Amino acid sequence: MIKVTLPDNSVREYEQGSSSLDVAKSISEGLARNVLAAKVNGEVWDATRPLTEDVTLQLLTWNDTEGKSTFWHSSAHLMAEALEALYPGIKLGIGPAIETGFYYDIDFGDYEFSSDDLEKVEKKMNELAKQKNEYKRSEISKADAVQYFTDKDDEYKLDLISGLNDGDITFYEQGAFTDLCRGPHIPHTGFIKAIKLMSVAGAYWRGDEKNKMLTRIYGVTFPKAKELKEYLELLEEAKKRDHRKLGKELELFTFSQSVGQGLPLWLPKGTALRERLEQFLRKEQTKMGYGQVVTPHIGSKDLYVTSGHYAKYGEDSFQPIHTPDENEEYLLKPMNCPHHCEIYRSKPRSYRDLPVRLAEFGTVYRYEQSGELHGLTRVRSFTQDDAHIFCRPDQVKEEFKKVIDLVQYVFTSLGFENYTAQVSLRDLENKDKYIGDDALWDIAEREIKEAADEKGLPTVIEYGEAAFYGPKLDFMVKDALGRSWQLGTIQVDYQLPQRFELEYKDKDNTAKRPVMIHRAPFGSMERFIAILIEHTAGNFPLWLNPEQYAILPISEKYEEYANKLANQLEVEGLTGTVDHRDEKIGRKIRDAEVKKVPFMLIVGEKEAEEGTVSIRRKGEGDLGSMPIEEFISFFKKEAEVKA
Amino acid sequence: MIKVTLPDNSVREYEQGSSSLDVAKSISEGLARNVLAAKVNGEVWDATRPLTEDVTLQLLTWNDTEGKSTFWHSSAHLMAEALEALYPGIKLGIGPAIETGFYYDIDFGDYEFSSDDLEKVEKKMNELAKQKNEYKRSEISKADAVQYFTDKDDEYKLDLISGLNDGDITFYEQGAFTDLCRGPHIPHTGFIKAIKLMSVAGAYWRGDEKNKMLTRIYGVTFPKAKELKEYLELLEEAKKRDHRKLGKELELFTFSQSVGQGLPLWLPKGTALRERLEQFLRKEQTKMGYGQVVTPHIGSKDLYVTSGHYAKYGEDSFQPIHTPDENEEYLLKPMNCPHHCEIYRSKPRSYRDLPVRLAEFGTVYRYEQSGELHGLTRVRSFTQDDAHIFCRPDQVKEEFKKVIDLVQYVFTSLGFENYTAQVSLRDLENKDKYIGDDALWDIAEREIKEAADEKGLPTVIEYGEAAFYGPKLDFMVKDALGRSWQLGTIQVDYQLPQRFELEYKDKDNTAKRPVMIHRAPFGSMERFIAILIEHTAGNFPLWLNPEQYAILPISEKYEEYANKLANQLEVEGLTGTVDHRDEKIGRKIRDAEVKKVPFMLIVGEKEAEEGTVSIRRKGEGDLGSMPIEEFISFFKKEAEVKA
Repeated sequence: MIKVTLPDNSVREYEQGSSSLDVAKSISEGLARNVLAAKVNGEVWDATRPLTEDVTLQLLTWNDTEGKSTFWHSSAHLMAEALEALYPGIKLGIGPAIETGFYYDIDFGDYEFSSDDLEKVEKKMNELAKQKNEYKRSEISKADAVQYFTDKDDEYKLDLISGLNDGDITFYEQGAFTDLCRGPHIPHTGFIKAIKLMSVAGAYWRGDEKNKMLTRIYGVTFPKAKELKEYLELLEEAKKRDHRKLGKELELFTFSQSVGQGLPLWLPKGTALRERLEQFLRKEQTKMGYGQVVTPHIGSKDLYVTSGHYAKYGEDSFQPIHTPDENEEYLLKPMNCPHHCEIYRSKPRSYRDLPVRLAEFGTVYRYEQSGELHGLTRVRSFTQDDAHIFCRPDQVKEEFKKVIDLVQYVFTSLGFENYTAQVSLRDLENKDKYIGDDALWDIAEREIKEAADEKGLPTVIEYGEAAFYGPKLDFMVKDALGRSWQLGTIQVDYQLPQRFELEYKDKDNTAKRPVMIHRAPFGSMERFIAILIEHTAGNFPLWLNPEQYAILPISEKYEEYANKLANQLEVEGLTGTVDHRDEKIGRKIRDAEVKKVPFMLIVGEKEAEEGTVSIRRKGEGDLGSMPIEEFISFFKKEAEVKA
Repeated sequence: MIKVTLPDNSVREYEQGSSSLDVAKSISEGLARNVLAAKVNGEVWDATRPLTEDVTLQLLTWNDTEGKSTFWHSSAHLMAEALEALYPGIKLGIGPAIETGFYYDIDFGDYEFSSDDLEKVEKKMNELAKQKNEYKRSEISKADAVQYFTDKDDEYKLDLISGLNDGDITFYEQGAFTDLCRGPHIPHTGFIKAIKLMSVAGAYWRGDEKNKMLTRIYGVTFPKAKELKEYLELLEEAKKRDHRKLGKELELFTFSQSVGQGLPLWLPKGTALRERLEQFLRKEQTKMGYGQVVTPHIGSKDLYVTSGHYAKYGEDSFQPIHTPDENEEYLLKPMNCPHHCEIYRSKPRSYRDLPVRLAEFGTVYRYEQSGELHGLTRVRSFTQDDAHIFCRPDQVKEEFKKVIDLVQYVFTSLGFENYTAQVSLRDLENKDKYIGDDALWDIAEREIKEAADEKGLPTVIEYGEAAFYGPKLDFMVKDALGRSWQLGTIQVDYQLPQRFELEYKDKDNTAKRPVMIHRAPFGSMERFIAILIEHTAGNFPLWLNPEQYAILPISEKYEEYANKLANQLEVEGLTGTVDHRDEKIGRKIRDAEVKKVPFMLIVGEKEAEEGTVSIRRKGEGDLGSMPIEEFISFFKKEAEVKA
């Protein structure tokens, strides 16, 4: 008999040679039907693999990342089986699970496989899945493995085997298909109930452009048909909400090849949105005792050598800027912190002056390869809603709590209700690799956890995830499509105060070193706005919307009246447009709907005579006519920031 | 007899050989006593020089720039005479008039002349001035001139003569002193009634560091003692108002050698001031139909080759930024215009969309030699309150008028009441050197003049001062010390629309080229704030002041009450500080006065109990005690922008 310890620390006894699936069955048949794999002593195994000694065991289902990953890897094998059946003689590269789904790289020889072929392959896969073929694991000698793939004439698998040691090689077999594979796999192909092959692309063998280009087929599978349907709907919705698409349609930002890749140009409406976000945060920060600063976008190279950023970004980022006399060297700033440290240093500080909180909407520049650029989420210039808090060690907890308050206020005001916090602490086994006093770390780590707890934040603790210069807390935010984004980092830093020799005079008149806290609720304006666009599908909160109204005159005759109204609204701080085009009113309404304008103010003869406007609200329709003053007070009430 | 035409076009007849001074005497003895030189057929002459033919004549006095300049040049000769008398054997370099006063570069041989010697020299100059020695002009051959200075062993004058042609050489003599000099000079030394030698510095002969360093003595002189007194008082006042000094005292900005020279770091109070200025302008611009944009601080080198800025700034400014793969080249942006052109180009424009007005507080970077940097007025990074108006040719006048309105509103709101406008037009003799359609230029020039006239602007027309790409209008503003600053440029540009191939679709469906107007009421935030600091001596308009109040608790016991008040004020948008220091109330009041805080709110037992504050207003003293709400409404009334 062997002892199996389960995640709840309960211990059960089983006959030696029982599998994880047997354990599941002993708990419930329903559970057993959902077990995809198992974590045995921390390693992911086939659920069917015999357990030969005492183990700790975690059963993995579709709800576990590793369960999903096993499911998709097995689906790659299923696809390969289908492909071999349909295209005999093909050679196989690698077929891993990826973040969502899987792919397999295939050498089709002379055949030009295209997306037109995908349906046929899906059909074959469904047929094979129904056969409920077991995935069978076998250990095999290197010689036998080489023999097998030499017979199949598959140079790719032979290439892979050449890198493996004898005794480390396993094969997996299901139905008519055998693959070189480390595993693990799901019990049988019957688990795979819904299949969608997504796309076809080219991929060099081993990612090296000197090698042959293989055909990469991407797919995704699910244990339930409903899940596939939901996934495809989500993809469709994500495509509609793509911030690059909406950014163009709503005229928020643009890019110009002449200016340079990855360097966004903010159009008037995008700038209005961005400035409202900035003003919103700035106002809260002022209340909380932050001082805004403005610093240049370059700094001497030495500054970044001192800060350590040159070592980190120097070689791989934008190269140094020389003066015409070659005597000076500057860098585009990759971070605002060194500049803020210099501001801290610009006058003597006493323990009574702390915390000093310096905030800046600081635009930084970091090189990214052009292939990695993506809309506003991966850019070469971005503006951080940055701030640095210089405080005494005894103030860290209080400051952390205040920042948590601020971040939560920001998220709630912007409609992100679903978030958790990850606390990244030291690897306790390797304390040597962290700088800063051990006792200070202990205190700071404890205080961050306490701060999060006292603020009622749902947290996950990750040991070993702290930066070498301090522990941190990250917010993980779920958007309307259920996708997770890391937003709002709070980071303790013992390093920069040391590198910049920052000091304050303590109560006892001795010089002490302050602790620095980095924080950015949005992270970067660019990335945050991208997420906000996709989260709201462009239907921004009313207070933030750069196009709060559109005045639609029924004909040219009412242009003057329309302009007068627009002026009144502008003076009251509302932003919007007058549609002066020579178009029918129906067309004007439709276009305003496409632009997601929340309020349409229609003006014709009746309105001009009565001094009113006819209001249509997006999603609600006609609200009737009212004097403009009435609309303004109604609007202002509706547009209050809700947090 | 010769005919003399005076500036009022009256013509008088004089005997041949009469001097300008004779002409003056014939008009009035009083005038004659004030004549320093004369403009004869456009050239400045000694007033005593005989007129040999019919001329146009303008008598020059202290009120004319050229009169002053002649006066100061003659003063340099007077100083040289005094120095020769006091330090026989010295050698003389050059001794010109400068913007204010004059200098002379002297080789004192082994003697180390210092500022301690200045009083002695002044005394000697005063003595020589009283002798009323005439400045006598003589023409001399090159050989004789060489002989004279060879005898004096003055290698500097010989060096100067070597660059002159025979027949072009004149000497001037007064008292015991003779100098190689082109002139002109005042009639005699007696005009110089007040003398102040300012400072001593080193200067290389001909400005070349390979040459010997001479001693440069700076001085200033006046025709009346009272004027010197006023000038020295002005200097004293300017020193007190120096924005570099006040910027430090008021904690507005700082510089860090580690960040880099000429790169200002804006401290919280300076940032608050700057942001208020920006918000103020932004608000007006929004009302006037501008759209704010945000563009990156770099652009591809090609962008600036297209715009022509690379040709202008490329070699002499910050050098190109390379990417790590060396495939791309970027420049720090010296101008925002190319980025705005790219935004204009980002979508098709119709005649109905124009004018498109794009505004940005855009930070630009231009290299200046370190010796030329000066506080905030000469920096390497500065933020322009930039905007570009893309309009149809028929809209230029209307847009110009709107910009004039805006600039005037800005100046008046900020207390600059004294300004004129300079209109810079083409050189009509050299129309070839300007780009753009001749007829368009004619219209634009006429319309700029009309716009200025219709707005009642006092203007000066300068022909030949237009840029090659378009005419412009500059505002010349006088500050509280009477100094003139060029602020608020409006510039028509035919070139960039051409270089960037900008177009709009006209009513007739053909593609037309828009006209571009550049404008910046402040010019740059840095320079404007420097001027504003010196103009107001740091006593900013209340609405703009970053430190509107200081709450001064009488002791620690009232800190909590003080903080509560501060919160109330912050929520109402007022900015200020609480003086938490453990100091006597008298000291706190004095320190707040040094910081030019307009309102001091003193709180002690009585105030805390009654829920009031005791108000002291800078320059007015005690205003009594009142509830905080009452103070807030009083403050808001006082802080309204007055224009």
